[in-house]
Amino acid sequence: MPRILVIHGPNLNMLGRREPEVYGRTTLAEIDEGIRAKARELGVAVECVQSNHEGVILDRIAEAPGTYDGIVINPAAWTHTSVALRDAIKGCGLPAVEVHLSNIYAREPLRHTSLIAPVCIGQVSGFGPDSYLLALEGLCRYLSKRE
Amino acid sequence: MPRILVIHGPNLNMLGRREPEVYGRTTLAEIDEGIRAKARELGVAVECVQSNHEGVILDRIAEAPGTYDGIVINPAAWTHTSVALRDAIKGCGLPAVEVHLSNIYAREPLRHTSLIAPVCIGQVSGFGPDSYLLALEGLCRYLSKRE
Amino acid sequence: MPRILVIHGPNLNMLGRREPEVYGRTTLAEIDEGIRAKARELGVAVECVQSNHEGVILDRIAEAPGTYDGIVINPAAWTHTSVALRDAIKGCGLPAVEVHLSNIYAREPLRHTSLIAPVCIGQVSGFGPDSYLLALEGLCRYLSKRE
Amino acid sequence: MPRILVIHGPNLNMLGRREPEVYGRTTLAEIDEGIRAKARELGVAVECVQSNHEGVILDRIAEAPGTYDGIVINPAAWTHTSVALRDAIKGCGLPAVEVHLSNIYAREPLRHTSLIAPVCIGQVSGFGPDSYLLALEGLCRYLSKRE
Amino acid sequence: MPRILVIHGPNLNMLGRREPEVYGRTTLAEIDEGIRAKARELGVAVECVQSNHEGVILDRIAEAPGTYDGIVINPAAWTHTSVALRDAIKGCGLPAVEVHLSNIYAREPLRHTSLIAPVCIGQVSGFGPDSYLLALEGLCRYLSKRE
Amino acid sequence: MPRILVIHGPNLNMLGRREPEVYGRTTLAEIDEGIRAKARELGVAVECVQSNHEGVILDRIAEAPGTYDGIVINPAAWTHTSVALRDAIKGCGLPAVEVHLSNIYAREPLRHTSLIAPVCIGQVSGFGPDSYLLALEGLCRYLSKRE
Amino acid sequence: MPRILVIHGPNLNMLGRREPEVYGRTTLAEIDEGIRAKARELGVAVECVQSNHEGVILDRIAEAPGTYDGIVINPAAWTHTSVALRDAIKGCGLPAVEVHLSNIYAREPLRHTSLIAPVCIGQVSGFGPDSYLLALEGLCRYLSKRE
Amino acid sequence: MPRILVIHGPNLNMLGRREPEVYGRTTLAEIDEGIRAKARELGVAVECVQSNHEGVILDRIAEAPGTYDGIVINPAAWTHTSVALRDAIKGCGLPAVEVHLSNIYAREPLRHTSLIAPVCIGQVSGFGPDSYLLALEGLCRYLSKRE
Amino acid sequence: MPRILVIHGPNLNMLGRREPEVYGRTTLAEIDEGIRAKARELGVAVECVQSNHEGVILDRIAEAPGTYDGIVINPAAWTHTSVALRDAIKGCGLPAVEVHLSNIYAREPLRHTSLIAPVCIGQVSGFGPDSYLLALEGLCRYLSKRE
Amino acid sequence: MPRILVIHGPNLNMLGRREPEVYGRTTLAEIDEGIRAKARELGVAVECVQSNHEGVILDRIAEAPGTYDGIVINPAAWTHTSVALRDAIKGCGLPAVEVHLSNIYAREPLRHTSLIAPVCIGQVSGFGPDSYLLALEGLCRYLSKRE
Amino acid sequence: MPRILVIHGPNLNMLGRREPEVYGRTTLAEIDEGIRAKARELGVAVECVQSNHEGVILDRIAEAPGTYDGIVINPAAWTHTSVALRDAIKGCGLPAVEVHLSNIYAREPLRHTSLIAPVCIGQVSGFGPDSYLLALEGLCRYLSKRE
Amino acid sequence: MPRILVIHGPNLNMLGRREPEVYGRTTLAEIDEGIRAKARELGVAVECVQSNHEGVILDRIAEAPGTYDGIVINPAAWTHTSVALRDAIKGCGLPAVEVHLSNIYAREPLRHTSLIAPVCIGQVSGFGPDSYLLALEGLCRYLSKRE
Repeated sequence: MPRILVIHGPNLNMLGRREPEVYGRTTLAEIDEGIRAKARELGVAVECVQSNHEGVILDRIAEAPGTYDGIVINPAAWTHTSVALRDAIKGCGLPAVEVHLSNIYAREPLRHTSLIAPVCIGQVSGFGPDSYLLALEGLCRYLSKRE
Repeated sequence: MPRILVIHGPNLNMLGRREPEVYGRTTLAEIDEGIRAKARELGVAVECVQSNHEGVILDRIAEAPGTYDGIVINPAAWTHTSVALRDAIKGCGLPAVEVHLSNIYAREPLRHTSLIAPVCIGQVSGFGPDSYLLALEGLCRYLSKRE
Repeated sequence: MPRILVIHGPNLNMLGRREPEVYGRTTLAEIDEGIRAKARELGVAVECVQSNHEGVILDRIAEAPGTYDGIVINPAAWTHTSVALRDAIKGCGLPAVEVHLSNIYAREPLRHTSLIAPVCIGQVSGFGPDSYLLALEGLCRYLSKRE
Repeated sequence: MPRILVIHGPNLNMLGRREPEVYGRTTLAEIDEGIRAKARELGVAVECVQSNHEGVILDRIAEAPGTYDGIVINPAAWTHTSVALRDAIKGCGLPAVEVHLSNIYAREPLRHTSLIAPVCIGQVSGFGPDSYLLALEGLCRYLSKRE
Repeated sequence: MPRILVIHGPNLNMLGRREPEVYGRTTLAEIDEGIRAKARELGVAVECVQSNHEGVILDRIAEAPGTYDGIVINPAAWTHTSVALRDAIKGCGLPAVEVHLSNIYAREPLRHTSLIAPVCIGQVSGFGPDSYLLALEGLCRYLSKRE
Repeated sequence: MPRILVIHGPNLNMLGRREPEVYGRTTLAEIDEGIRAKARELGVAVECVQSNHEGVILDRIAEAPGTYDGIVINPAAWTHTSVALRDAIKGCGLPAVEVHLSNIYAREPLRHTSLIAPVCIGQVSGFGPDSYLLALEGLCRYLSKRE
Repeated sequence: MPRILVIHGPNLNMLGRREPEVYGRTTLAEIDEGIRAKARELGVAVECVQSNHEGVILDRIAEAPGTYDGIVINPAAWTHTSVALRDAIKGCGLPAVEVHLSNIYAREPLRHTSLIAPVCIGQVSGFGPDSYLLALEGLCRYLSKRE
Repeated sequence: MPRILVIHGPNLNMLGRREPEVYGRTTLAEIDEGIRAKARELGVAVECVQSNHEGVILDRIAEAPGTYDGIVINPAAWTHTSVALRDAIKGCGLPAVEVHLSNIYAREPLRHTSLIAPVCIGQVSGFGPDSYLLALEGLCRYLSKRE
Repeated sequence: MPRILVIHGPNLNMLGRREPEVYGRTTLAEIDEGIRAKARELGVAVECVQSNHEGVILDRIAEAPGTYDGIVINPAAWTHTSVALRDAIKGCGLPAVEVHLSNIYAREPLRHTSLIAPVCIGQVSGFGPDSYLLALEGLCRYLSKRE
Repeated sequence: MPRILVIHGPNLNMLGRREPEVYGRTTLAEIDEGIRAKARELGVAVECVQSNHEGVILDRIAEAPGTYDGIVINPAAWTHTSVALRDAIKGCGLPAVEVHLSNIYAREPLRHTSLIAPVCIGQVSGFGPDSYLLALEGLCRYLSKRE
Repeated sequence: MPRILVIHGPNLNMLGRREPEVYGRTTLAEIDEGIRAKARELGVAVECVQSNHEGVILDRIAEAPGTYDGIVINPAAWTHTSVALRDAIKGCGLPAVEVHLSNIYAREPLRHTSLIAPVCIGQVSGFGPDSYLLALEGLCRYLSKRE
Repeated sequence: MPRILVIHGPNLNMLGRREPEVYGRTTLAEIDEGIRAKARELGVAVECVQSNHEGVILDRIAEAPGTYDGIVINPAAWTHTSVALRDAIKGCGLPAVEVHLSNIYAREPLRHTSLIAPVCIGQVSGFGPDSYLLALEGLCRYLSKRE
C-alpha cells in the first residue's frame, strides 16, 4: 500500500478564517478529513502535516525516503520564495505533486512563478480543496504506472 | 447530465509519433477513448475535437454556450501565444480547465507562461493522458458544486 | 466613390453576448448596420468582413489592392500577436485605420502594445461602436486630402 | 449645450513652423479655427487653451468641473512624462479624449507609451488636425449617450 | 523655535473633491488647519504652500535655507517624475520628510517608486491627513536630537 | 483600550551592536522601553516580540485576531523576501503599520522594494527608534477613527 | 532520390508586389521555378506550398514524414510568433532549413528573434531568392552525409 | 556676428551654495561672467537665462529662431525627464550644444541617460564651468563651418 | 588560537544521499571530519553546525562575536534568497568566507546570484568537500595577516 | 575574376580538436582546402586567414578594399562581443557574409545575438564546413548580380 | 610643459574613407596635424597613437604614468565593450578625457552607453575633429587648475 | 609531476601601482614568486604568463593541451567581456580554476557576472594574492583525485 505525505505550507492553518473570498470557508481539519477519505477510497496511506516553520518541513522531507512513496504539497507562499524547499524535494528523490487551492495564475504577478513546479511531476491548481484530491489521485496513478 | 467540450490544440494529432520521450506513446484516439470512459464513469457527456486551425477552435468556442456546460482544453502551443483563444474562453462564459500532458514548468522558458490560465478556473499538468481525466473530474466537481 | 474594406478580427462575432460590461450589448450586425449608414452619409462604399481565421483575413488583404482604396480594421486579439497581419497591411500598400471598441490602454498590460499601429495611418479607440464611425470618417478625410 | 475645454500641450504654439514634415504646416490658430467650426456644426461650446507651463494647465483642469462637460487634450510631450496631468484629469472627473496629430506608435519608442491614455475615455491619433475634429465628435457622442 | 516649510505638490488643491475614495473628503484648508494646530502643540512655526507649478516650488526651496530649519513635503505626482525636485531638496541642505496621504505601495505600479525618498531623512505614508502630523512630529524629534 | 502587537523581525536582537552607523546605538530593550512609555501616553496596551524564526512570527500573527486590535511591524530583512509574512498579515485581517529604522529608499537597491507595504495601512521609515513611536501613534489614530 | 517539401509562409503570395524595396520584384511563381530548376540540378524531388493559414501548414508538416526527407521553410511573419510551427517541425522529426529573403538581423527588432531556428539544422538569410537555392543545396548535402 | 542663447536649467541658481563638492563653489553670476568674456574673445553675442520654470524655457526656445543662431544649454535635472525640452530644441531648428558641469556618467544611474543629447549636435560634460566655454567654442566652430 | 564557526545551510544533512551526481557521495559527517583534520593542521579551533532552520543559524551568528574569530559558511539554497542571513553576517562583524560544493555558475540561472557574497571577504566554489578546506585555509591566512 | 577574403575568427585554429561533438572533426586546413576547391569551381580567387588577435583581423579588413571584392567571415566568439569588428566591416564598404559552423540559435542564449549580422548582406549557419561553401556561393551570386 | 597622450581606438585608421557621411572626410593624419597645431597654441606636448590592437593601447597606458600628465582618448568601438580599457585608465591614475567625433547619443542604441566615461574627468562628443581640440583644451584647463 | 599554466589577464602587469586600495601593494613578480613557492610545496610545475593581448592568451591556451595538465587563470577585465576566452578554455579540455584578487561580488555591478566561471571547475575570489595559492592547491587536489 503506497504511503503519501501531504504537506501544507505556511498560513494554511488559518484556512477558513483567512480571506474566505479567496480560499473558501473550509478549515484545514476538514480538508485533511477529505484527504483521508479519498486515500481510503484509493487504497493508500496518508499522513498530513502543516507548519509555518520552513525548517520543520525540510526536516520532514529529508526523512521521507523509506517512510513514504510520494509527496503532495501545497507550498503556499513558499511556492514563490523557497529554493530550500525546491532543493529538498529534488534531493529526496520522491515523486511530488504541487497543489494550489486558488488559480495562482489569475492572481497578482508575484504568484505566477513557482520555484517548486520544476521539481514536481505535475501540478493541480484552482479547484479549492478538490485540488488535493485530484493531486492525490494523480500521484497514485503515477505510482501504480511506475511499478 | 452535464455536457463537456474537450479541445485538443495544434499538433496533438501527432501524439504517439511526435517526441514520445516528452509526450508518451499514447495516440490521440486512445486518449479520447480514455476520456469517454471516464465521462461515462462520471455521468457526463463529452465531445472531443482537435484542430491545427485556430479559427476552427474559436468558432467552436463561440458556439459552445447553450450546447456545453464546460470546457476542458489542452491549448498546446497556443498556450503561450494566443490572445484570441484567451478572449474566446473568457467571452463564452463557460468554466474551463487547462490541461497539459507534460509539466510545462520543467521545460524550456517559453513554455512557462500561459496566456490561457488566467481565464480558466484551474489547471492540471504533468500527468500525461491522466491530466485530461483529472481535469474532467475537477470540472465535474466544480459544476456540481455550482448548482 | 472611395471603397473601404472594414475588417473585424477574432471573437467579434460574439459581440453583444461576450463580456457586455467591456464591449457593450450591440451585436456585430448592428455595428455593420451603423457603418453602412455612416458610409452612405460620407459617400463611400464599404464592405464588412469578420473572421476568426487569420488566413482568411490575410487572403482578403492580399486581394484588396485594386478593389479597395483603404481599410478600417479592428484587429481584436491579433493586435497584440500577429506579425503576419502587420506585414499584410504594410505590404498591400493601402492606408489603414486601427479601431478598438474599448480603451485598450486602460485594460490589462498585454493589451497596451499594438503590432498593428505602426503600419496604420492612425488609431481610434475607446468610443464603443462609434470608434468605427470616427475611423471611417478619418480615413475618408485622409483619402480626399491625398487626392 | 455641452461645453468642451480643448487643451493644447507644450510646443504646440510652434505648429506650422516646427518640423512640418511630422506635424504639417497648419498653425495652431488655424486648428482652433477648425475646432470652432466643427463645434458649431455639432452644437457645442468650445474654449481652446495652449500653454507651455504645466502648472497653468493643471490649474485650468482643477477649475474645469462646473464650467465644462468634457475635455479634448493633446498632451504632446507631457503624454509620456506627466503623472500630474494624469492625476488632474482623473481627479476632475470629466470625460476626456486624448488627441495626437501624428501616429505616435510609428515614431521613436519613447513616444509609444501614454501616461494619459488610461484616464481618458478614448484616443484619436494620426489624422493631423482632423484628430481634434474626430475627438470632438467622439466626445459629443459620448456625452449625448450618457444623458 | 524651529521653522518648518510644509509643501503640497500638484493637484492637492483639489483635495476633498478629487477621488474622495482614495484621498478622503478633507480639504487642503482643513489639513493646513490641522498642521498649524499640531505645530502649536509641538512649539514650531510652520508655513504651508501649495502649487501646481514646479518652478514655484523649486524657487521656494532654493530660498528656504536661512528662513526654515526643515521641510515636510507631499510631492504628489512629482514623487515619481521630478528629478528637479530631488535636486532642489538635496541641494538646499535642509532635512526633509516625505509625506503621502495614501499608501502608495498599495496602488498602481507607477506610484511605487519615489525619486524624492532617497534625499529625505524619512517617509510617512498611508495615514491620510495624519501623515502630515506624524511627519511634522518626526521632523521635530529629528531637529531636537541633532542639536 | 486598544491592544497592539509590536513585532521585530530578524537580527533586530543585534541592535546597538550591529552596524551602529546605520542602525544607531540604541538596543532593542531600550526601544521596547520607549514603545511601552509611548503606549502608556496613548492609552493602549502593547506587547513586543522579536524572533529570528519566521515561523514563530507567523504563528503569532495567526493567533493575533481576538487578542490584538492592530500590529506594528518592523519586518527587517523579511521586508524584501517573505511572501509568507505578507500573507499572514493580509490573512489575519488586523490593520498593520510597517516600520523601518533607516530610510530604506536611501540604501542598496535590494532594500527599495517591500513585499509587506501593500498589505499594511501605512509605512513609517527613517526616524530611527522614533519610527516605532510615530507608527504606534498613527495606528492609534487609525483605530480611533475607524470606530 | 531525396524528396524535399518547400514551405512558404504568410504573405509570400504577395511577393513581387509587396514592398519590393525589401523583398525584390521576383514573384513567388518565379521563385518556385528557380527552386525546381535547382532541384533538378541537385537530383532531388521538390514540392512547393504556400499558405496564409497556419493550420494548413501544420497539417502538411504532420503528414510529411514518410512522404518527404526534409523541409525548406521560409516562415515569414510566423518566424517570430508561432510556437505551433516550432512544435510541428520538431515533432515531425525531419531535418529542416530556415530561409529568409531579407537579412532579418538588419531590420526592426521584432524580426531579430526566431522561434523556428532552434529546431532547424541551419539557417540561410539575406540572399533574396537565392536563399532558397542555398538552403536546398545545404539540406541535400546534409542528407547525403547522414546516409 | 553670431548670436548665442545660453540656457541654465533648474536649481542652477543655487550654484556655489548647492553641494559644492559636486558642483564647485563658483556662482551662476560668475559663470555668466566667464561666458561673456569667452564670447567677446570668440566674437559672438551671448544672452544668458536661468529658470526653474520649464514653461519659461520652452517659451524662450520657441521665440529663439530669428533672434539667435544657436543654443548652449545645461538642462540640469530636465536632462533626464523633459521630453518637452527635447521637442522644443528639435522643433526650433537651431543647433544646440548640451553642457554639464559634472561628469554625469560617473554619478547615480538616473543621470546616465539624456533625453536632450539626441537632438543636440554635441555634448560637453565634466569640466565644471569650463564646460560652458568649451561648448561655446564648439558651437562657434560649428556655425562658422556651416556657412 | 583562532576559533572558526563552520555553518552548513539547509538540506546539507542530506549530503551523500541527495543528488550524488551533483554533490558527491561524501556525507556531512565525513566532511566535518575532514574540516576538523584540516583545522588541527592549521592550528585553529572549529565548530561545525548544520540546520534547516534559518532562525537557528541567525541566532548562532548573533552570538558568534566574542566566541569565534571568523565564519566559514555554505549557505546552500539560502545563498539566493536570504537577506536575513546577509544582514546577520554583515551585522556580526566577523570575517566570513562563502563556500559551495558545486560550481554554482555552471548550474541553473537561479543559482548564479549570491546575496551572501557581497558581505563575505571571499568565496570558494566548485571543489566538492575540498571547498571547505580551501576556505578554512584562506580565512586563517586572512586572520593571521590582519593581526 | 572576383577576389574573396575568407576570415576565421578566434579559436578556429583549434578545429578538429576542440569540442568535436559541436564543431566536428574536420581541421581548419581541411576546411580551407574545401573552400579553395569550391572557389576554383566558382571561378573566384580566395585567400583564407585565421587569427586569435582582433587587431590583426581589423588591420586586414581595413586594407581589404581594392584588394578584395567581398568577405566571408566566421567571427566565432567575436560574433557576440566585437563592435570593432562590426565597425570595420561596415566601414570597409565590401559586401560580407557571416558564417557559423553550428546552429548558434540552438545553443546557449549568449550565442543567439550577433553584432555582426546587421552589417552583412546575409548569414549561413548550421551546416558545418558546408556553411562556408554555401556562403561563398551566395556571395558570388550577389557579386555577379550587382554588376 | 604638460605632456598629453592622444589615443585613437580601432578603425580610426580608416577615417576619411570609412562612412564619410558619419565620420567626415578628414583623415587621421590631418586630425593629428590639427591636434599638434592646437597643442603648440596651448603650450603642451602631445603624442598621438592609433592601434586596432587593444593590447597595444593597454601597454601604452600602463607605461604612461611618469611620461605623460594626461590622456585624450577616442575609444571608438571599445567605448561600448572594453572593461580592460576602463581598468587601464582608472588604474594608471592620469586624468583622461573621452572624445567622440559623432554624437553617439543620436546613433544606434548600442552606442549610447560608455564603459569609459565613468573613469574619465569629462567627455566631448559630436563636433567632428574639433572634439579632439576641445578635449585637449579642457584637459589643459583641468591640469593648470589642479596645480 | 602535474604541470600547471598560470595566466594573468589584462592590466595585472600594473599590480602594486594600480589602485592599491583595491588590489593591494604586491607586484605581479612577487605574486609569481609566491605561486612558484607554493608549487614547489605541492610538487607541481608551474609557468606564469601575463599579457594585455587577448590573442596571446588564446594562442597559449590553444597550445596548452599536451604541455600542461591544468590552468589557473585570473581573467581580470576579460572575465566580463571575453566569449573568446571562454571558448578557448572550454575547447582546450583542460581543467581550469578562475581566480580573483578582490571579491568581485562586492564591487560595481558590471563585475558581478563572469563569462569564464561556467567553463571552469571552480572559482576562488577575494583573498588577494592568496587566491592564487588556494586555487593552485584546489586544482592539484582535483587532478590527484581524477587519476
